[in-house]
Amino acid sequence: MPRYKLTLEYDGSSYCGWQQQKNGVSLYSVLRAAAEKLSGERIAPVVAGRTDAGVHALGQVAHLDFTRLWEPATLQNALNFYLKPAPMAVLECQLVPDSFHARFSALSRRYRYVIINRAAPLTIERHRAWLVRPPLVLEEMQHGAALLLGTHDFTSFRATECQAKSPLRTLDSFVLQQEGNRITATIQARSFLHHQVRNMIGTLKLVGEGKIPPSAISDILAARDRRAAGPTAPPDGLYLTAVSYPAM
Amino acid sequence: MPRYKLTLEYDGSSYCGWQQQKNGVSLYSVLRAAAEKLSGERIAPVVAGRTDAGVHALGQVAHLDFTRLWEPATLQNALNFYLKPAPMAVLECQLVPDSFHARFSALSRRYRYVIINRAAPLTIERHRAWLVRPPLVLEEMQHGAALLLGTHDFTSFRATECQAKSPLRTLDSFVLQQEGNRITATIQARSFLHHQVRNMIGTLKLVGEGKIPPSAISDILAARDRRAAGPTAPPDGLYLTAVSYPAM
Repeated sequence: MPRYKLTLEYDGSSYCGWQQQKNGVSLYSVLRAAAEKLSGERIAPVVAGRTDAGVHALGQVAHLDFTRLWEPATLQNALNFYLKPAPMAVLECQLVPDSFHARFSALSRRYRYVIINRAAPLTIERHRAWLVRPPLVLEEMQHGAALLLGTHDFTSFRATECQAKSPLRTLDSFVLQQEGNRITATIQARSFLHHQVRNMIGTLKLVGEGKIPPSAISDILAARDRRAAGPTAPPDGLYLTAVSYPAM
Repeated sequence: MPRYKLTLEYDGSSYCGWQQQKNGVSLYSVLRAAAEKLSGERIAPVVAGRTDAGVHALGQVAHLDFTRLWEPATLQNALNFYLKPAPMAVLECQLVPDSFHARFSALSRRYRYVIINRAAPLTIERHRAWLVRPPLVLEEMQHGAALLLGTHDFTSFRATECQAKSPLRTLDSFVLQQEGNRITATIQARSFLHHQVRNMIGTLKLVGEGKIPPSAISDILAARDRRAAGPTAPPDGLYLTAVSYPAM
């Protein structure tokens, strides 16, 4: 069966996340419905990162198997047609070998987290960023983030319901940049634990506020206890921006 | 009566524009309701640029007169409280002399127009940019935009219902930049005719597509006929970003 790799963009703010839940509409069901309407077949999309409720994607990757062989550009346009009016779009579509797996073939995942640091409520960026009112010091956050780089036991930063076998993860990069009152974090790793990015951001916010020193990050890692870290940052500011794979 | 200058940000996508219309909710009424609830007085806000339906603001400027003297930070927070849940926020608040007038004192207005140039529908940027599918050549658009700089009779680029006495306007700058598939125009003038920015953008889109050469812009200006220019670009991509005033 021909397999297609899709690069997806979506606004996650009105969905219960990628996966089906008891309540709410899932992004999985949105893509599945479009693919099934288009093909008349039963389709079960697989994604690189099962984003949580309210989390967005600029470069999520999925794979789908169809019985019929489609010209990739035709499939992309047809999927985009059937996805309407859902805020999900297929940015790229590629025929890939059966050995390609959106989740298991992924070499790395990159996320962006956007903080708007100001007193006034969000308007245009509502549901698209985290509004943080206390003034944040970028340099302090950068020092804290540097301590998260490399391989660590991230137990303190994983959701208690996280089902990964190992709490060990390797953070390849964690870049914090500021432009006016917008702070953007770019974070890359082979894979992440559940809520890891949001828990790291929620903790670095405490560093930026001056509530804990940057060096506390090392103590929090060493504690291997979720209660040692800060609160989970809201999903609004989180974007899955890219997933990389071996050359095909 | 103490006069306050407010810097406003809003998402215009679900409003009928700044001014009251027969149908729809106006941004004027949103700000007015918040100011009246807060003060118990009758308030009539005046703005620098009466944006059309669907147009956004990152730096709109308004002035409001209150009977009571407010500490500006208190007034800002109280207005933001009463504006909820409308997607409008007061970014700055300043006590100004009675001689300050948001509209008539303005020295220049700056707008941004955002085009996303790709085949896939918009998701996160829906209502926040203009989706243009045919590939655009930035350089050609830049050559066309350069011909609009300076003082011209902009009759070809003004809405037929425009009520300005003179069609003469002076364009101070028109910068077009590209980052990936996002093209951003930054346009500044003392003032603009009705729909002038959107009509200029709609015409430069034809230049970018190669439907007309950049030099056609001069012919279109010379024609002094709305029918000579391209269609009006949608409001979705337009942002009033800043208004400047003499030092106070």
